[in-house]
Amino acid sequence: MPDAPPLTEAETLARLRLARSRRVGATTFHRLLAEHGSAAAALAALPEIARAAGAEGYAPCPEGVARAELAAGRRAGARLLSFAAPGYPAALADLDDAPPLLWALGDPALAARPMIALVGARNASSLGLRMAQRLAQELGAAGFTVVSGLARGIDAAAHEAALASGTIGVQAGGIDVIYPAENTALSARMAGQGLRLAELPPGTQPQARHFPQRNRIIAGLARATVVIEAAARSGSLLTARNALDYGREVMAVPGHPMDARAAGCNLLLRDGALLVRGAEDVIEALGAVMSAPRPARPMPPAAAKSPPPGPAATDAPARVLAALGPSPTPEDALLRTLGLEAPVLAQVLVLLELEGQVTRHPGGLFSLG
Amino acid sequence: MPDAPPLTEAETLARLRLARSRRVGATTFHRLLAEHGSAAAALAALPEIARAAGAEGYAPCPEGVARAELAAGRRAGARLLSFAAPGYPAALADLDDAPPLLWALGDPALAARPMIALVGARNASSLGLRMAQRLAQELGAAGFTVVSGLARGIDAAAHEAALASGTIGVQAGGIDVIYPAENTALSARMAGQGLRLAELPPGTQPQARHFPQRNRIIAGLARATVVIEAAARSGSLLTARNALDYGREVMAVPGHPMDARAAGCNLLLRDGALLVRGAEDVIEALGAVMSAPRPARPMPPAAAKSPPPGPAATDAPARVLAALGPSPTPEDALLRTLGLEAPVLAQVLVLLELEGQVTRHPGGLFSLG
Repeated sequence: MPDAPPLTEAETLARLRLARSRRVGATTFHRLLAEHGSAAAALAALPEIARAAGAEGYAPCPEGVARAELAAGRRAGARLLSFAAPGYPAALADLDDAPPLLWALGDPALAARPMIALVGARNASSLGLRMAQRLAQELGAAGFTVVSGLARGIDAAAHEAALASGTIGVQAGGIDVIYPAENTALSARMAGQGLRLAELPPGTQPQARHFPQRNRIIAGLARATVVIEAAARSGSLLTARNALDYGREVMAVPGHPMDARAAGCNLLLRDGALLVRGAEDVIEALGAVMSAPRPARPMPPAAAKSPPPGPAATDAPARVLAALGPSPTPEDALLRTLGLEAPVLAQVLVLLELEGQVTRHPGGLFSLG
Repeated sequence: MPDAPPLTEAETLARLRLARSRRVGATTFHRLLAEHGSAAAALAALPEIARAAGAEGYAPCPEGVARAELAAGRRAGARLLSFAAPGYPAALADLDDAPPLLWALGDPALAARPMIALVGARNASSLGLRMAQRLAQELGAAGFTVVSGLARGIDAAAHEAALASGTIGVQAGGIDVIYPAENTALSARMAGQGLRLAELPPGTQPQARHFPQRNRIIAGLARATVVIEAAARSGSLLTARNALDYGREVMAVPGHPMDARAAGCNLLLRDGALLVRGAEDVIEALGAVMSAPRPARPMPPAAAKSPPPGPAATDAPARVLAALGPSPTPEDALLRTLGLEAPVLAQVLVLLELEGQVTRHPGGLFSLG
């Protein structure tokens, strides 16, 4: 991020307060920043905005809370990376829900290299673990930084194998909260040789709802997300969905259909994910991307951030769900009812199928559940 | 084949002699039949045609040899099915190299139902064998006849599991030559409950060169060929190539990349074969085909058989091989050099890759071997 000017200390504090204020998610953060030009201005406007929306007595995050977080982060040895400021991963800059802030422990330069996410099951098979190790080593040797989630199983195997070449672990809780405990030693080495990133404040214990938020950062960092082993309804498939949403490549390692741990991967493959037999397949698929010179696109200033997607795009999944019932409905009928474009509907159906919210029946029929 | 009139005994004998004459392969057989209107007329013209082509002393298959084959077939209890005559499988009628004759033992009506080929490795894994059994049972229950090659491994498992619902075994040698010997009991039950087909004369011991010929019949009978488990360079991939050539569906069961027995299937999947997790996937993919009323296309009379493909189509693989060398050549360059249409070249490259004659490199480059 050599082009972006560093933020003032006041603006950094204001950003932290804005990001930590109730009801201000990542997308809202960017909209407020774009509308008001700075976090300080947005923060000043926030109580009036809340009042206009009928929320009496709304107060933004107090300055003391933000200062305490800054102190806690520094005690953990971490550095705060602000959206569009120096050190912030350029790969995340395009995302409508880019993390406003990231706590970083380790070498932020690892996020400046092309990244591949390797994700998969916690209860992976030995074949799956070996595949994760082999892919991580070979992709590392080819110059890619390996991104994963510091979980048990596939994640840990991938990080371990890529420690020497470069790896980033994205944490669901605070940067100083190691989960699971068995990854304590690995996490310490990641901070020394690799990079750990956490969106939530130091000290945050990871909750179930935090993992999908973490997964979007993994998908957003990586040019491609490779699912190595995953059951039919698993977090790895949500990461794959994020990657699709972000226009990144989704790839999957096949497995035998009688192995339940391959069900998620095989589902992705049926839905068009690239089949990965080894690192060469990943590298070949990204070859065109990698060899093309990266467009010289400087980090956009925060105020020029593209607006969040309009209702047409974001509403589509909800509208499709509303149009479906327990008995199968033809895709054609959905097209007519919803007035969506066919490719949009097809993609939404794939995503909902991935999430297990929709079932695909023979003959182009779909039902809920 | 209710619309096709039965052949006279004399024409049946002439067809057998024509088909068994030296240098008359299936494609030549159909061309001669189309040019001369009947096998008897083609047979009469054959010595003159050979002389004009510089082959002195050419004699067609003697009548005695053909009569001896008819007698041997009857002794084996088999029935001779002639191209475009009653009992001949309608599924084969479109093929440029449709077998001129088939010896049949069992119930020819099984070939009048929609058929699925299940093929795969002789040295299959236990997972592969279970998959073959399960697919055969479920596809049989759904009304499909299961076609395979009566070989060890996947073939035998598929036949066994589909005996009750209906299965066809296509033999590489003569109808009365059981190979491998361990399938003797299965072969006997196939003749009783199922159907066995053989293109070569009774008594023929199967040779290596006969298996690709047999494989084309398997692919030609079936609406879809499902490869259940196959190494990278295996006969099952040649059957898949035949299916592609015939415009039929190619499907494959995925396996873990670290299992060498999955390499062929994963290669097919990368090249666009449909991923099969179970019988539902096959049935769903064929759903549109199956539910559409079959066009009321009567069996074409032999004389109206479409001509064999011209040099443009048949030469393409040889021309591509001639244009390639050991060092990688871009697909673009091949396009310009050969003047083929891009989709044609792409398909030829996939086929040659399947056969192991061509290697695909990153960046759209190809080399021999």
